[in-house]
Amino acid sequence: MEANAPLTAATLARLLGPWRVAGGSDASRHPARAALADRITALILDGRLPVGARLPAERPLSEALELSRTTVTAAYTSLVERGYASARRGSGTYTALPERLLARPAGGWQEGQGADLVDLTCAAPLPPLAALRAATAWAAERLSVVTQESYLPYGLSALREAVAQRYTERGLPTDPSQILVTAGAQGAISLVGRLLIRTGDRILVEGPTYPNAIDSLTAARARLTPVPLDPATGWADGAAGGGAARIPLAQAATRLSPRLVYTIPHFHNPTGLVMPPELAGPLARAARKAGAWLLADETITDAALDVPVPAPFAAAVGPADAERLLVCGSLGKSFWGGLRVGWVRAPSRVVHELAAARASLDLASPVIEQLIAVAVLREGFGIEEERRAEWRASRELLEAALRDAMPDWSWHTPEGGLSLWVRLAGGEESTSLVHRAATHGLLLQSGPRFGADPGTYERYLRLPYTEAPEKLREAVRRLAAARTALGPVHAAERRRDLVA
Amino acid sequence: MEANAPLTAATLARLLGPWRVAGGSDASRHPARAALADRITALILDGRLPVGARLPAERPLSEALELSRTTVTAAYTSLVERGYASARRGSGTYTALPERLLARPAGGWQEGQGADLVDLTCAAPLPPLAALRAATAWAAERLSVVTQESYLPYGLSALREAVAQRYTERGLPTDPSQILVTAGAQGAISLVGRLLIRTGDRILVEGPTYPNAIDSLTAARARLTPVPLDPATGWADGAAGGGAARIPLAQAATRLSPRLVYTIPHFHNPTGLVMPPELAGPLARAARKAGAWLLADETITDAALDVPVPAPFAAAVGPADAERLLVCGSLGKSFWGGLRVGWVRAPSRVVHELAAARASLDLASPVIEQLIAVAVLREGFGIEEERRAEWRASRELLEAALRDAMPDWSWHTPEGGLSLWVRLAGGEESTSLVHRAATHGLLLQSGPRFGADPGTYERYLRLPYTEAPEKLREAVRRLAAARTALGPVHAAERRRDLVA
Repeated sequence: MEANAPLTAATLARLLGPWRVAGGSDASRHPARAALADRITALILDGRLPVGARLPAERPLSEALELSRTTVTAAYTSLVERGYASARRGSGTYTALPERLLARPAGGWQEGQGADLVDLTCAAPLPPLAALRAATAWAAERLSVVTQESYLPYGLSALREAVAQRYTERGLPTDPSQILVTAGAQGAISLVGRLLIRTGDRILVEGPTYPNAIDSLTAARARLTPVPLDPATGWADGAAGGGAARIPLAQAATRLSPRLVYTIPHFHNPTGLVMPPELAGPLARAARKAGAWLLADETITDAALDVPVPAPFAAAVGPADAERLLVCGSLGKSFWGGLRVGWVRAPSRVVHELAAARASLDLASPVIEQLIAVAVLREGFGIEEERRAEWRASRELLEAALRDAMPDWSWHTPEGGLSLWVRLAGGEESTSLVHRAATHGLLLQSGPRFGADPGTYERYLRLPYTEAPEKLREAVRRLAAARTALGPVHAAERRRDLVA
Repeated sequence: MEANAPLTAATLARLLGPWRVAGGSDASRHPARAALADRITALILDGRLPVGARLPAERPLSEALELSRTTVTAAYTSLVERGYASARRGSGTYTALPERLLARPAGGWQEGQGADLVDLTCAAPLPPLAALRAATAWAAERLSVVTQESYLPYGLSALREAVAQRYTERGLPTDPSQILVTAGAQGAISLVGRLLIRTGDRILVEGPTYPNAIDSLTAARARLTPVPLDPATGWADGAAGGGAARIPLAQAATRLSPRLVYTIPHFHNPTGLVMPPELAGPLARAARKAGAWLLADETITDAALDVPVPAPFAAAVGPADAERLLVCGSLGKSFWGGLRVGWVRAPSRVVHELAAARASLDLASPVIEQLIAVAVLREGFGIEEERRAEWRASRELLEAALRDAMPDWSWHTPEGGLSLWVRLAGGEESTSLVHRAATHGLLLQSGPRFGADPGTYERYLRLPYTEAPEKLREAVRRLAAARTALGPVHAAERRRDLVA
């Protein structure tokens, strides 16, 4: 399999990071070969090593890691035995996933498969079945409006109008010509990447940020530069001064002249932070003056739990700066991600260019799903308040269960959004924990998935609270069990942590 | 607007090709400035110059074209006056589209807009409303199966099963694990490009080929190398010898070791040619031996009009060669493109990698549209035969109208597919004709859109016969009017053609 860029020993060594356990008594219980196999397994489960990647040959890897070749060979053998690699004669060793994990249910359509797995990798709402039925019925009655055209690169007119109207009602006058319908917000990010990004362009992102945005912009061959958010103060650095001077992201834009700045201003994924509205204008101005485009991702904006829904980011941006501002949104969090209906709001001339670029990506969005989205935006079906009440309850349940089972973990309760960004106890390591949790039937995304630089956020874990209560309780039970099982490793890691 | 790569004078000169009219009496009627403006307009309408691209400054362009600067200035002014460019003070001149063309109806939802336009840019069937209603109702009754998961990177299990079963019934045993659902066949091509292509990789394509595949693979930063199809013999060169030796595409694969070979084996778009089944095996073997992946696009396979539906390409490929074979298909031609349901059939391990790569593109396909696709595949709704009868009638109607109005044009009647690939009369030029047709309210794709090298296929025009009869008749009327209006230019072109 050569589907991916060759994985060199140096690259793997970098991805592994400081993987080796400290010396001492733990070394006998958890020798280097097992630790190496575990870390490679974690990289695979974490999505940072693709399935089917050819692992480096044993000799260069042993040199890069300063290990004996026997150790590397033993680690590879262990991976193969546990299903995380396959050896092909004369060709090498390739990453793989065990059948057990491959058999994840696709859509819940089929009973039985992987029924015991708890999947917290996505922070996505459950399908609102009653509303979905009503919206589908609404759409089914209006199929006759689907007359001539099959491919709508701009999107269904009625949906562009409904989205524009929603912005206008929220205080941001918007014309349908400023809206392009996309395959969810992820499709919007991919499309913006395709239109704007050339190989090697620099993009500023927040640290941490949304993993699929990292992957999409990386696939567009951009260089991502993370600008850390302050866990307490978010986008502001709290220092004296006003305007852009107190926004590290704006300062970085001025200094680095990136091609694009990507921000998640409301209930930021994964931290839950909210950008104060008075920072939006200065950030947009700094980006425009630096010659950058600004992409504000409002996917989660509607998931306001303890505060009103924030005003649109663009409402605080002046007309000149708005020429370089793109906003994406979707119904994925406020209604259902299974619809795959998102959009970009941009100057009309950029909408034309995005529509032209779209043909090479996926031509257009499905028509019936767009009709259903029109129904959702026009009729609402009264689910928003119900949803928020459910999420508040789920958040409370998850927080209580975590406090109970892991009293040494900490987090800020987010005012909105769909997940907790949990800081682990000293020396604990997110990647190891996520790997171990998978063996307990709990799937999670580890902290480093949210960092544009490899190996960052190892002290963090994102825990969505969008699953049903019994699943959340079971998730915490499995997490606690995984943590207990990891004991010795974590003890070793704690020592390393004290040294480093 | 800097959304696109800067357009240099040299690039524009190359795109313009041999644009200048011959001297003589026509020069006064159609001076260089008008000809230059017309050719730039044609490039815009043709999609080869993106809307919003900054045109080169006047001085370098006048030097590159060996024209006076006054002529270039006058051409730019003419573009601006006709809405094909906008001048921004201190910034330059940017390509644009007139409001009239921008107001193309999106989805037919709204009455009135652009109602007079005849759009033959897509060879796509009209929505089969009755079947669509039935399929939507079928899906609406089964929404409760949409239980837990919102994001299905592999696709809905039931749809993967239905697609696999369809292949199995057609003589190619297929397991659902070999199927990945995509956003139409275009989404499949984009996804394959994202997974397999690195900057500068070589891809062999047929000449001519499907324009959106060209765009998608070019956007993946590949170098496309076209291998011409023989208008009479297709993939075989008719020379002595058997197997790969008589397939230029296979020989080119052996010689050039590309990363990927992209082929449309059945009712090839745009030529309508069908690859003889005995060539599939040797082509796949040559690709595999050259270390290449082979992507066979079976989007149009079901549109068989005068012959039975061809056997699956993969059915003639041996197991070793199948390890490097990907096939894409969709319901876009056999049912309706507005569903945006397509798939890749590939070895299971490649399906896993495609699913992993998908997250960064658009996460997954919409669920309800996939349920509707299950209904279409399971129930059929008896539309296939009806459709074929309609298309046969439309093809006959279009051919008769063309023979009548343009007796000096020629084409092979295709045994299937959705369009004619028409050879124009000597000296006529597709791009000019398409440009002129747009001013008569007829939108077409010119021949060069189907060539991976710019400026090729200027003697060809693709004419889909998927529109309603009255629209096809009107299209031919407008085409004839455009051709008449072009008279003098074409006369000049004919002279050039005799010289060149």
